[in-house]
Amino acid sequence: MKKEFAVIGLGRLGGSIVQELVALGASVMAIDIDSEKVDEFAQIATQAVVADTTDESVLRSLGIRNFEHVVVAIGENIQASILTTLILKEIGVPRITVKAQNDHHEKVLLKIGADQVVHPERDMGRRMANNMLSNNILDYLELSDEYSIVEVQANRELVGHTLIDLDIRAQYGINIVAIKRDNHLLVSPQAIERIKDGDILVVIGSDLDIHHFEKEILL
Amino acid sequence: MKKEFAVIGLGRLGGSIVQELVALGASVMAIDIDSEKVDEFAQIATQAVVADTTDESVLRSLGIRNFEHVVVAIGENIQASILTTLILKEIGVPRITVKAQNDHHEKVLLKIGADQVVHPERDMGRRMANNMLSNNILDYLELSDEYSIVEVQANRELVGHTLIDLDIRAQYGINIVAIKRDNHLLVSPQAIERIKDGDILVVIGSDLDIHHFEKEILL
Ligand SMILES: Nc1ncnc2c1ncn2[C@@H]1O[C@H](COP(=O)(O)OP(=O)(O)OP(=O)(O)O)[C@@H](O)[C@H]1O
Ligand SMILES: Nc1ncnc2c1ncn2[C@@H]1O[C@H](COP(=O)(O)OP(=O)(O)OP(=O)(O)O)[C@@H](O)[C@H]1O
Ligand SMILES: [Ca+2]
Ligand SMILES: [Ca+2]
Ligand SMILES: [Ca+2]
Ligand SMILES: [Ca+2]
Repeated sequence: MKKEFAVIGLGRLGGSIVQELVALGASVMAIDIDSEKVDEFAQIATQAVVADTTDESVLRSLGIRNFEHVVVAIGENIQASILTTLILKEIGVPRITVKAQNDHHEKVLLKIGADQVVHPERDMGRRMANNMLSNNILDYLELSDEYSIVEVQANRELVGHTLIDLDIRAQYGINIVAIKRDNHLLVSPQAIERIKDGDILVVIGSDLDIHHFEKEILL
Repeated sequence: MKKEFAVIGLGRLGGSIVQELVALGASVMAIDIDSEKVDEFAQIATQAVVADTTDESVLRSLGIRNFEHVVVAIGENIQASILTTLILKEIGVPRITVKAQNDHHEKVLLKIGADQVVHPERDMGRRMANNMLSNNILDYLELSDEYSIVEVQANRELVGHTLIDLDIRAQYGINIVAIKRDNHLLVSPQAIERIKDGDILVVIGSDLDIHHFEKEILL
């Protein structure tokens, strides 16, 4: 039987992957060279192990070949990231995802056999820049060239009104699929729901209609 | 006239924000204490400046109060991140976005007046974990810690059935907010809508319920 996941490098990225995988019910081996990091994950991960993953014999002794998918989330030490990836590939791990520091690092990783290379800081930076340029759109999911789901902050024009009152669907051709309020989410809000200060509206519609709504109502 | 953006800290996150903002046509002042980092951005940013932003007089002399939106992307040095944010707030910058290292850091930042706190590594880690667990989730918008909107490919188990027939809301606690079909989008599909081969379902729900739905229906 194949084991599920192993995550090497328990920085913010690797640590978050371990936590979310466990929260979703997966089994995860958490590995770091730093025993303090490993201690942090002793209660969270299925197994937490101190190991230098640039040492092939250490990786073999962990039975790493039995894992379906291994993530290398080693950051600053690019050499350790590359060497670890190389060894995982040689051992025959079926799926290897690696975090890259820059484009050069990515090229090397792909050349030595990484299946997927991620750039969390670069991608999040791009996302943030796009969000910053639209004053109200907090986050978005592009559904197609024309349609998106966006999160917008409710403003004074909206607060205190009910959805039926605002008649947003007829007026703007968009739909409110959920409202984020305090720390919870109202899915499919009722027509009589009243928008409160601080609400974030999750809206689906065409980019044009959303843009129009933003210009008319949110500025 | 207000200037547009300033980005403090030119690591991978801050650097990516500067590049994308410039690519999108915005004007950006790029600031770092490290002159090598600043040199990298001399040709990219509208202005690139070496400065220690924990020094109030330095920030004032840069005219930072004239910027509409300032991003603090200082990483490891949490003290510098907090002090910089505090000074920006005192000077009266209208919008301040700060990168946090952990939950404690976030709490402090919000208390001293940051308008928005981001956790790029944590959020990307969650995103990656969700993608790793699913072979069917095509795209993904995290609405909160617990809730997401995902796109999933309809499979043989679903094709030919109507939504009322499948009773997904009652069975799995999730909602289908739209169906992508041949280049168009059906928003708020009716209960009698029949799922066709090739349909992509846009689903809202808790991560756990989505994961459960995927395990039961999509595998
Ligand atoms: N040879 C190695 N074997 C195992 N773990 C290692 C090795 N080298 C580094 N690590 C671990 O990788 C983790 C992540 O590395 P580092 O903190 O440099 O990355 P980072 O990019 O700043 O992280 P993040 O941005 O995700 O917080 C660290 O906890 C470090 O101890
Ligand atoms: N007081 C300061 N004033 C200006 N810049 C600073 C100050 N302190 C740190 N910085 C800069 O902030 C940048 C980002 O910091 P650091 O590299 O620690 O973050 P990081 O979280 O590892 O970055 P990333 O994950 O985005 O690559 C660095 O280039 C650093 O020189
Ligand atoms: Ca678009
Ligand atoms: Ca770092
Ligand atoms: Ca980082
Ligand atoms: Ca989540």
